[in-house]
Amino acid sequence: MCGRVIVVPVLNPLALEAWSRNTPLDGLNLNRVFPGRANGSITHRIADAVSRVLLPMADTVFDLHSFGPKWDCLPAATTHPIADPDLMARTVRMAEAFKLPLTLVWPHNDTAGMFDITAQNQGKVFVCSEFGGGTVGADNLAIYEAGVRNALIALGLVEGKADYPIFRHQSFAQTLETRLSDELKSPAPGIFEPRCSVLDEVKQGDLIGILHSMNSLSAESIDIRAPETSIVLAIASGAHVDANKVVAYVARPLKI
Amino acid sequence: MCGRVIVVPVLNPLALEAWSRNTPLDGLNLNRVFPGRANGSITHRIADAVSRVLLPMADTVFDLHSFGPKWDCLPAATTHPIADPDLMARTVRMAEAFKLPLTLVWPHNDTAGMFDITAQNQGKVFVCSEFGGGTVGADNLAIYEAGVRNALIALGLVEGKADYPIFRHQSFAQTLETRLSDELKSPAPGIFEPRCSVLDEVKQGDLIGILHSMNSLSAESIDIRAPETSIVLAIASGAHVDANKVVAYVARPLKI
Repeated sequence: MCGRVIVVPVLNPLALEAWSRNTPLDGLNLNRVFPGRANGSITHRIADAVSRVLLPMADTVFDLHSFGPKWDCLPAATTHPIADPDLMARTVRMAEAFKLPLTLVWPHNDTAGMFDITAQNQGKVFVCSEFGGGTVGADNLAIYEAGVRNALIALGLVEGKADYPIFRHQSFAQTLETRLSDELKSPAPGIFEPRCSVLDEVKQGDLIGILHSMNSLSAESIDIRAPETSIVLAIASGAHVDANKVVAYVARPLKI
Repeated sequence: MCGRVIVVPVLNPLALEAWSRNTPLDGLNLNRVFPGRANGSITHRIADAVSRVLLPMADTVFDLHSFGPKWDCLPAATTHPIADPDLMARTVRMAEAFKLPLTLVWPHNDTAGMFDITAQNQGKVFVCSEFGGGTVGADNLAIYEAGVRNALIALGLVEGKADYPIFRHQSFAQTLETRLSDELKSPAPGIFEPRCSVLDEVKQGDLIGILHSMNSLSAESIDIRAPETSIVLAIASGAHVDANKVVAYVARPLKI
């Protein structure tokens, strides 16, 4: 290896132990309090240490996530859109270097306090990986490991040949983007029955899933359909959903 | 269709809505309060209605579960061992009629208040299905649907030919049993890294997973290995585990 890699296995051990996004001690989500405060509660202090001590030592940051436990989601290297076009282009190239099945640019929703904004404000290339289910399996870990190795090769930190990891018996990679209109939402509360899977290509009007009312046996179930030709990148799998919640993300080829 | 099928989409809607085993109103797990009490809290009352009203109308009961959200688990039709050898044989035959990848007999742990005991005390054949992850995906739903259809064909309720559903590009079925010694446990608290997947065949000494300490950077990671030749039927995927918790279930061919 040539160069320096700083590895932090877990940024928020208390939240990991509780299998929650929020730190049990102060109820805060680490990824909503960046850049943090040195005199704040524990979650603020972790963010502060990362922002002031770790980030200035790095040129490139990988934030390795799993998605939510009520979701099935494609292994993806992701970024939100970045105002600086040069940093945006370098970030997408870095994300693509993971060679994961999906490189994704998705909208920001103006969420305050996220880690990536703080890193990008310091001029860093920041790539966030998402995997399905809020869990770790041997198959997914192997894909993650291959993706990180590919990225380190692209950075010139390790030698070797980058390879597309195998996902569900396939090797491939595509770069997609999701707009706010690609977040398909539940029109009512109920049980969401997924009728497609991640990686499925859907055409306008194809069935994504069915929402079944829990409040009335006579209420008609509601079909949720694809608004246009797209690829399913994540689909809810937690059964019950509230009204107006995202139940599927679809995506289309990236145009920068 | 010939005969009567009573379908209850959800026995405990409040718990489903909360994505929890426990009913939010009284904190009770429906599958630990059977046969219930008519004058008890809401969870007791649901169990009571099932035990006194629904069960007497049925000869055969299917309880369609998903496994826990921190687990990956093979689609399985399961039963605990039953003292009555005739009911046991009929139950295993019914479970095998689902033609799921796995028919499983697993130990009881003397858990009080479970639905199956109440049903078996009334002489019913009771099959519980388990699927991985506490979630529903389109692929798993298709397997479930095929399994239930196969079972209804075996009961003579619907006509047709039973088919093995496809799971991960394979069609197969096997009947296994798990003993208490097949529940592999974490020797310490930490992060569990799974190193095998469901359906893997392992030999004595093969690596099942690695437990990484969260308390000390200098603590050695601990290998968890297969005690003997067996098949992995469920493996923990929630990252953090407490000490002495099950992290994997292995199984061997059933001998009745």
